[in-house]
Amino acid sequence: MSSTWSNNITFSVFGESHGPAIGVCIDNVPPGESLDMDKLMQFMARRAPKKDKTSTQRREKDLPQIMSGFFNGKTTGTPLCAFIQNTDQHSQDYSKMQSLARPGHADYTGALRYRGFNDQRGGGHFSGRLTAPLCFAGAVAGQILERRGIYVGAHIAEIHKIKDESFDPITVSREDIIAVREKEFPTISDKKGKMMRNEIEKVRELQDSVGGVVECIAVNVPAGIGSPIFDGLENSIAQLIFGIPAVKGLEFGAGFNSAKMLGSENNDEFYVNDKGHVVTRTNFHGGILGGISSGMPVTLRVAFKPTPSISQPQRTVDYSAMKNETIAIKGRHDPCVVPRAVPCVEAAVNIALLNHMMDYPNF
Amino acid sequence: MSSTWSNNITFSVFGESHGPAIGVCIDNVPPGESLDMDKLMQFMARRAPKKDKTSTQRREKDLPQIMSGFFNGKTTGTPLCAFIQNTDQHSQDYSKMQSLARPGHADYTGALRYRGFNDQRGGGHFSGRLTAPLCFAGAVAGQILERRGIYVGAHIAEIHKIKDESFDPITVSREDIIAVREKEFPTISDKKGKMMRNEIEKVRELQDSVGGVVECIAVNVPAGIGSPIFDGLENSIAQLIFGIPAVKGLEFGAGFNSAKMLGSENNDEFYVNDKGHVVTRTNFHGGILGGISSGMPVTLRVAFKPTPSISQPQRTVDYSAMKNETIAIKGRHDPCVVPRAVPCVEAAVNIALLNHMMDYPNF
Amino acid sequence: MSSTWSNNITFSVFGESHGPAIGVCIDNVPPGESLDMDKLMQFMARRAPKKDKTSTQRREKDLPQIMSGFFNGKTTGTPLCAFIQNTDQHSQDYSKMQSLARPGHADYTGALRYRGFNDQRGGGHFSGRLTAPLCFAGAVAGQILERRGIYVGAHIAEIHKIKDESFDPITVSREDIIAVREKEFPTISDKKGKMMRNEIEKVRELQDSVGGVVECIAVNVPAGIGSPIFDGLENSIAQLIFGIPAVKGLEFGAGFNSAKMLGSENNDEFYVNDKGHVVTRTNFHGGILGGISSGMPVTLRVAFKPTPSISQPQRTVDYSAMKNETIAIKGRHDPCVVPRAVPCVEAAVNIALLNHMMDYPNF
Amino acid sequence: MSSTWSNNITFSVFGESHGPAIGVCIDNVPPGESLDMDKLMQFMARRAPKKDKTSTQRREKDLPQIMSGFFNGKTTGTPLCAFIQNTDQHSQDYSKMQSLARPGHADYTGALRYRGFNDQRGGGHFSGRLTAPLCFAGAVAGQILERRGIYVGAHIAEIHKIKDESFDPITVSREDIIAVREKEFPTISDKKGKMMRNEIEKVRELQDSVGGVVECIAVNVPAGIGSPIFDGLENSIAQLIFGIPAVKGLEFGAGFNSAKMLGSENNDEFYVNDKGHVVTRTNFHGGILGGISSGMPVTLRVAFKPTPSISQPQRTVDYSAMKNETIAIKGRHDPCVVPRAVPCVEAAVNIALLNHMMDYPNF
Repeated sequence: MSSTWSNNITFSVFGESHGPAIGVCIDNVPPGESLDMDKLMQFMARRAPKKDKTSTQRREKDLPQIMSGFFNGKTTGTPLCAFIQNTDQHSQDYSKMQSLARPGHADYTGALRYRGFNDQRGGGHFSGRLTAPLCFAGAVAGQILERRGIYVGAHIAEIHKIKDESFDPITVSREDIIAVREKEFPTISDKKGKMMRNEIEKVRELQDSVGGVVECIAVNVPAGIGSPIFDGLENSIAQLIFGIPAVKGLEFGAGFNSAKMLGSENNDEFYVNDKGHVVTRTNFHGGILGGISSGMPVTLRVAFKPTPSISQPQRTVDYSAMKNETIAIKGRHDPCVVPRAVPCVEAAVNIALLNHMMDYPNF
Repeated sequence: MSSTWSNNITFSVFGESHGPAIGVCIDNVPPGESLDMDKLMQFMARRAPKKDKTSTQRREKDLPQIMSGFFNGKTTGTPLCAFIQNTDQHSQDYSKMQSLARPGHADYTGALRYRGFNDQRGGGHFSGRLTAPLCFAGAVAGQILERRGIYVGAHIAEIHKIKDESFDPITVSREDIIAVREKEFPTISDKKGKMMRNEIEKVRELQDSVGGVVECIAVNVPAGIGSPIFDGLENSIAQLIFGIPAVKGLEFGAGFNSAKMLGSENNDEFYVNDKGHVVTRTNFHGGILGGISSGMPVTLRVAFKPTPSISQPQRTVDYSAMKNETIAIKGRHDPCVVPRAVPCVEAAVNIALLNHMMDYPNF
Repeated sequence: MSSTWSNNITFSVFGESHGPAIGVCIDNVPPGESLDMDKLMQFMARRAPKKDKTSTQRREKDLPQIMSGFFNGKTTGTPLCAFIQNTDQHSQDYSKMQSLARPGHADYTGALRYRGFNDQRGGGHFSGRLTAPLCFAGAVAGQILERRGIYVGAHIAEIHKIKDESFDPITVSREDIIAVREKEFPTISDKKGKMMRNEIEKVRELQDSVGGVVECIAVNVPAGIGSPIFDGLENSIAQLIFGIPAVKGLEFGAGFNSAKMLGSENNDEFYVNDKGHVVTRTNFHGGILGGISSGMPVTLRVAFKPTPSISQPQRTVDYSAMKNETIAIKGRHDPCVVPRAVPCVEAAVNIALLNHMMDYPNF
Repeated sequence: MSSTWSNNITFSVFGESHGPAIGVCIDNVPPGESLDMDKLMQFMARRAPKKDKTSTQRREKDLPQIMSGFFNGKTTGTPLCAFIQNTDQHSQDYSKMQSLARPGHADYTGALRYRGFNDQRGGGHFSGRLTAPLCFAGAVAGQILERRGIYVGAHIAEIHKIKDESFDPITVSREDIIAVREKEFPTISDKKGKMMRNEIEKVRELQDSVGGVVECIAVNVPAGIGSPIFDGLENSIAQLIFGIPAVKGLEFGAGFNSAKMLGSENNDEFYVNDKGHVVTRTNFHGGILGGISSGMPVTLRVAFKPTPSISQPQRTVDYSAMKNETIAIKGRHDPCVVPRAVPCVEAAVNIALLNHMMDYPNF
């Protein structure tokens, strides 16, 4: 089911970059949840192209219109459908390259999968634009979670070898999360943020692009949500995170570093803290054991490859003519998707957490 | 659905470490597929405890008995159910620690999730033993794939900072894969394998454990399988891989390294090779673009944390009494799960690939 | 998942009677299928209110706008989303009865289910208007089926004890089906149709309503589609048919009559006909054995209760005040839903058949 | 997914009539539910062949062995798997007719669906024996429901035109239900029951078979469970009921009779009763409005065709040789499946109700 994720919540993302509209239909949203539309728009604005030069010059209003499932300021419990009209399309930019496979893009694989019938303009259904409906769904989920005290925030952890500081996986607070995620350029250290921006600008001038890493953290997730084996928090988050274009890696807690550790180092010892709660002294497990939340902050890191669209000439194929060709991608593209990916990662985590919270007694 | 994975194929894993049996029920297996039972047992034997000291001393026959869906040496198309009796249980080893949370295990989170009713002996349903039915399903899937020329193999890429060589992600062949995966200790370099074994033995003597990384590769996957957004090869593989206990990270192709690269480095340029096939000059994308196979080898790496069961004393809690305690885990445990995890990773990839191959025309 | 049906195809119906729009998002439609928009609109027009007095006086254009998944006149294979704006709403008609439960409606049960947050105007998400997106999906499925020779048609078999003739379940042809389903008032016998219209008109004048039965038949369904136990043609058709408001019964082939028969009467003997095809001499099994098509015409009958909205005063409760009350439903309502239900039944059958055809080799 | 039903609960039925075992794997059973194994066996015994001549002479112990998900007398919350060994097989009875299609059976359609690879002995996976695991799952669900006051019972409503009395759909009590369902031959009127037994015996002597109708009723189902459109109680019950072999029709409440009624007759008026509950004066809606329970008894009727296995000679085809043939079915068969179908219908309803109860607050 290409674009549908179904668990306690089902959501179906639809649309193509240059079609009339994109959107999302979310089934089984809890009824009676207020949605603050200003906060929702702020969430989506974080994904919108930045006004500075780190981002695409394409301007999109990306105003979601809610078609159903929302009445008198609250969710109804019946399907919540929103759509976003595509207004700022320059389809002519893409017209020439219909069967030129842009390296690093899904043009060739998508054409094979759909036997050439998919709308390839601007990447079509594979476009990064499809993360807008993901963010809509994630923003809705986030408001429902925050009403229950759960806060999810992400920041740019790394851009082309420049590393931000990390959240403390034990003491990180809701305030820490809010402070970072709402920055124009979300890094913990503003100094590192400035270096990253310079790096992106430098790369843009070279007609190149860079990748990076997003770190995401969730606090106040109650212990005991998620299920063993295939339906744990890690499985759900993973299935959603790999739905964001350009993601090539995902780790929880100590992640790939845990592979270098001894058990005696990596095991997080439990203790009863002075509030009478079971907590761990370290948090290498990233708040998840056996797929189930431990009550410690949930932590994860997501690797993004560099934006594949670069304006340098690249060698490629015309897969209709089966001929070697050269391509120079014009259009307007982000030299780095990572800043705009920050809310997308949060959105995926919000949805996964809300989904599993729905099994929680008295949710 | 904790232990059920459902896509084109549905499979449900059941059982507890110390219950009567564990097993798997697989629905929608293609009919008319021969199963070579010797090969199937060899696959499962790779997951069984090793005879040397790198592994648990627990002996399990792990003979799967097929209860349904298999007739006259071939799959019938109706549900294929297999179960494995639990015979070598030493439940008394676990009797004392019923509400002592073993650090790094799911004892505490599982007890919360199931309100104390789950069978916690030996980890119960969270036990690594539940990877035996996964391997059964993966072995079945693997035979169906190999009949169509697709070969999947994995090796130990890293144990506690010692690194094996890597497969060449462009030229790797079916023969390379078979040669490695069938070794007693599956590394490409036997010298590195020996170093790893020594390291594991050293750690075992220190009553400690180590983690590691498994690299997996699939060759001859036809271009065009998988679907965009939530149902791509990466999403399916991820959802299954995070069903293996102790996995903390997953990356495809260049993975976390791609975050450090420029677009001009990371983009894999296409060309038409002398056989008239579209291929790429490099393979940082790991054979998957937009969730869909490109025809290049599919490559992934999986990070495993150190075995949480170590016999050193560790601080923890009794979560019934809500008291701080100390635990020393006796039982018999692997100082490193990675060697036995190699076929588990292959199994997960086999299942995901078979699942998406079923959408392929004329499969 | 209230409004989502998921099998080989997933489709999610969204919207409320008096919200901005209703619609449907269909995932996994086969790519490259032409859609004839005129035929599609004709299909939907059959569900629209009739121009005579047998139907509601509410006028709806019900023009579906395709938002995605359709490009250059063909399906793309990515999600096909259509929506229909709600234009002709008279919400004031409903304003007074917010917590008066209309007898026979889902007002009371819906309010309980959604804790009072659902949009109850005009039935909200429970409205018969939600069959418009079902018809859209069914019309799309129907065009894909007809391209493969499969024709589905329904007619009014019974209105308030007046019975139409039946299709011959052995010899019925594609031409028979087309001839009936496209009539303004779809009965096989025009004489019976006239009697039914008179009956409906008579009942309308009495401020009352009537129920009826729709018979549906599908020809040229290849033998061998559907699956045993829970995923047979009967299961899928049933799950979809009971999604149409006012349906209270469903039978296949001889249905409830088979309960009165002897095995020697009811068993349909097989023979090889002069074209070399396996067929049956009778068709009491309705073209389905063990959930799987036999190659004979698929036949089913669907019972509809009388329209619950009648303008006579009825006793009911105010479920907020928990008081007994009287209600007289004004608004504009069909005295009989059956004529407009004919394409809805076809739509459900089209979707189920297309869904199972997608497992068919070389579909 | 032929034999898997997935909603809040997933269950997978596996096995063939003449294979080593049949069984069921149930995922997401609530944890901490006691199971009374004697009651469970009594439920299954009601499905077992009767000791008198109304039933097959085949003797089966049908003792389910629980393999997982059950510990210390309670469900654990992890998958509950049970299997039943096949012991009393007379496969030679079937050996000669490998490609003779028994009329009314799924031999021909199953062979097409599975390209001849399915195990056809005794009907294989299509056998009525597969209702034993359904009854196991239904018995488990029933105990969980009864602990919450919900009782489900069925009786034989009709055998070959002989009709039993009906439950009163308003006043029926838990005691009424228990009294009937536990009879050796479950009819409300013992006199009618005797007539039915005589009829079955008469038909058996004629080497023929008969069909019938089962009525099922559920009391104390709280108002507000189920969901609109495709996930209502009717949809779920229907999808499960059509998983029982020989079912050809299903109706809720007044069912097909409602098609003959006026709205003013069929609408069930609401009132607040003297206990302060909202109830209806009549119950033609069968306790379900808009897919959601109204709090009134849930009522349904299921039509069964006559047992297709009859020992009279019948004309048929050899579908391998594509030749006309004659068949006389020996083996041991029920002249009427209806008495043994009574607990199967209850089982399906139990599972559907438990499934939807799991969405109920504070379940």
